[in-house]
Amino acid sequence: MSVNLTIPDSLSPVKGIRLGSIEANLRYTNRDDLSLIELAEGSGVAGVFTQSAFSAAPVLVCREHLQQTEGIRYLVINAGNANAATGEEGLTSARMICAEIAEETMTALNSVLPFSTGVIGEQLPYWKIVEQVPALIDSLSEDNWIKVAQAIMTTDTSMKAVSKSLEIDGKTITITGMTKGAGMIEPNMATMLAYIATDAGIENKRLQEILNDAVRDSFNSITVDSDTSTNDSLILMATGKSGVSLNDSNQDQIIGAINEVCQRLAQAIIRDAEGATKFVTISVESAPDYAYAKEIAYAVARSPLVKTALFASDPNWGRIAMAIGKAPVKDLDVSKLALWLGDTQLLEAGEPLEAYQEEQGQKEMDKEEINIRIQLNAGESSATVWTSDLSHEYIKINAEYRS
Amino acid sequence: MSVNLTIPDSLSPVKGIRLGSIEANLRYTNRDDLSLIELAEGSGVAGVFTQSAFSAAPVLVCREHLQQTEGIRYLVINAGNANAATGEEGLTSARMICAEIAEETMTALNSVLPFSTGVIGEQLPYWKIVEQVPALIDSLSEDNWIKVAQAIMTTDTSMKAVSKSLEIDGKTITITGMTKGAGMIEPNMATMLAYIATDAGIENKRLQEILNDAVRDSFNSITVDSDTSTNDSLILMATGKSGVSLNDSNQDQIIGAINEVCQRLAQAIIRDAEGATKFVTISVESAPDYAYAKEIAYAVARSPLVKTALFASDPNWGRIAMAIGKAPVKDLDVSKLALWLGDTQLLEAGEPLEAYQEEQGQKEMDKEEINIRIQLNAGESSATVWTSDLSHEYIKINAEYRS
Repeated sequence: MSVNLTIPDSLSPVKGIRLGSIEANLRYTNRDDLSLIELAEGSGVAGVFTQSAFSAAPVLVCREHLQQTEGIRYLVINAGNANAATGEEGLTSARMICAEIAEETMTALNSVLPFSTGVIGEQLPYWKIVEQVPALIDSLSEDNWIKVAQAIMTTDTSMKAVSKSLEIDGKTITITGMTKGAGMIEPNMATMLAYIATDAGIENKRLQEILNDAVRDSFNSITVDSDTSTNDSLILMATGKSGVSLNDSNQDQIIGAINEVCQRLAQAIIRDAEGATKFVTISVESAPDYAYAKEIAYAVARSPLVKTALFASDPNWGRIAMAIGKAPVKDLDVSKLALWLGDTQLLEAGEPLEAYQEEQGQKEMDKEEINIRIQLNAGESSATVWTSDLSHEYIKINAEYRS
Repeated sequence: MSVNLTIPDSLSPVKGIRLGSIEANLRYTNRDDLSLIELAEGSGVAGVFTQSAFSAAPVLVCREHLQQTEGIRYLVINAGNANAATGEEGLTSARMICAEIAEETMTALNSVLPFSTGVIGEQLPYWKIVEQVPALIDSLSEDNWIKVAQAIMTTDTSMKAVSKSLEIDGKTITITGMTKGAGMIEPNMATMLAYIATDAGIENKRLQEILNDAVRDSFNSITVDSDTSTNDSLILMATGKSGVSLNDSNQDQIIGAINEVCQRLAQAIIRDAEGATKFVTISVESAPDYAYAKEIAYAVARSPLVKTALFASDPNWGRIAMAIGKAPVKDLDVSKLALWLGDTQLLEAGEPLEAYQEEQGQKEMDKEEINIRIQLNAGESSATVWTSDLSHEYIKINAEYRS
């Protein structure tokens, strides 16, 4: 199941990036589950990671390696085992894998970033990865974006990726990004795994600022089930190999394109959310500030009762009111509030509209893409959150399979 | 479905309390859906209510009427319509019902408390209630606790009530309480509807203090689906008709009994939670303070991924670690953390126990009553939260029926 998810036939290579994947039989069989991304020397790299207190071993190693200044050259990613809640042994496993790649490529240990996704609480059989490193390096090619986007999947029903090109000063800049994740999705600074690369030149400090901003209205504005992964990692890479570097005159264009890629990838996760039958956009307008608007949007997006009503296409808007009412915000005056389902208004100044007919709500709820719009009339700020519905299939996926 | 829910054959009448119910055909047919509770003159009454910004009309009227000092004499309760998100018209409906009861019983308008439970966002047909008031008053009797406990139900599979008696100074004190609620349960100060009465004498101010304390570790320590109702109301009544009044020498005994009744009623809601197949107790120990412990217990109790694993009896304890990791607490040091599933230890000092075998976890998970114990080794405080699992039946109930 997925809701209007566009699966690209091809993705544009990014100058300065090679990728590859192989079968390491970590959990899955007959599919690639081990991937490598190589960056040209001198590339900028920025990352955001889960805020979980139980951050996985690879996340801890990534944070450590991103501190150094020599530059990141390799990203190694396995699917099927999260290497999370694995203590000191898990940290050692992540470091062993980095060390093997560093040795085979004659780079520094801390120029390698490790990533894992899959079951939490099982030790990672790192030796299965270590013995495959030479084959993994042999698999590198500029044209492997689709192959790797598939190799990082777990409960995803399909790969999720986006390419975008810009012309600047007669030169072409490419931004290609991929992501995985379908459940345990309410990123807190980042989502499951996402890798976005551009051949524009952007130095590390600026790249990190751009990423932090881009994340706010993309990966940090989605929820499937309100659960936050131990392994959330989002990496933005800038190789500079297009010959164009970020400057005052081109930054709006380049940053705008990066933001757009982030938002499309984040939305792709929701379109492919576990059990999703609806793609739901919740906008909160005229709030006192951004955080206030977002708390209300998330209260609606997280509510199991709103999500089961969405699954049932039931215009039971009382549950939306309930969810707004429980949002942890101060001094919400519901007597000023207006509520829309698509183009149909339900509440004005906190009162149900007498003209409203249930058929109007039904028509909106029958759609696959549903917009819920909440006007607080209490300020100038707004926020949007994207979510999915809560279906039998979600229970089935998460009760019957171990993820 | 319910998990080891004890349904009493009889409930002890409370001196000074009469109750009754009738069919008003508000939403349901062939069952009582309108109830009245009468208190003896001079009774103490305390209440706690939802913190929802969308507090229902009857909740707003209850808060107003409890301000006055003449004393509460009647509680009127309808099931099937919540009279929530109904604006000024909803407030007028609630007041019309109070006015009719006040007139027929020759009491003051503000000596009547109204309560509603059911669908949110539909106007309450108050005239159906008003025309039934004489019949409702005729139905009053001391022995109707079971009848009324049934008449306040909505998606509950059975009535939930408890009686407890104490001997003090050769006199018998009775405490009888009833509650309803099965979904939209994460009370924030109180739960759906609960009514507890004693014939001990306790004046209003003290009664409110006792209730506030009792609620913390009972109704404010449960969650079914993390959704908070617009109508949560809990009323504690003390008629004094046993001839025993609260004093320094008997207060531990009386307050202890009230606390026990609150906790058993709150647990009964979880045992009858929508779709529940498990009754789950989550204890967090050795935390820096109570709020810290409770945030972690709630993070685990709310997690859809933990709840689907519980439904599947899958000892996938990595999801418990994930949920602990996302709790909104500061400076959680997982390297000190210990985790138990029943009597089986899984983590010690943040590391998985090598001796742990999956069969041990499976044995614990196969039980209907599951205990999850988390030791933080970071202080002296502890908190316990009770919850249910997340099953196909929950989705079915909330997608197929409008509640």
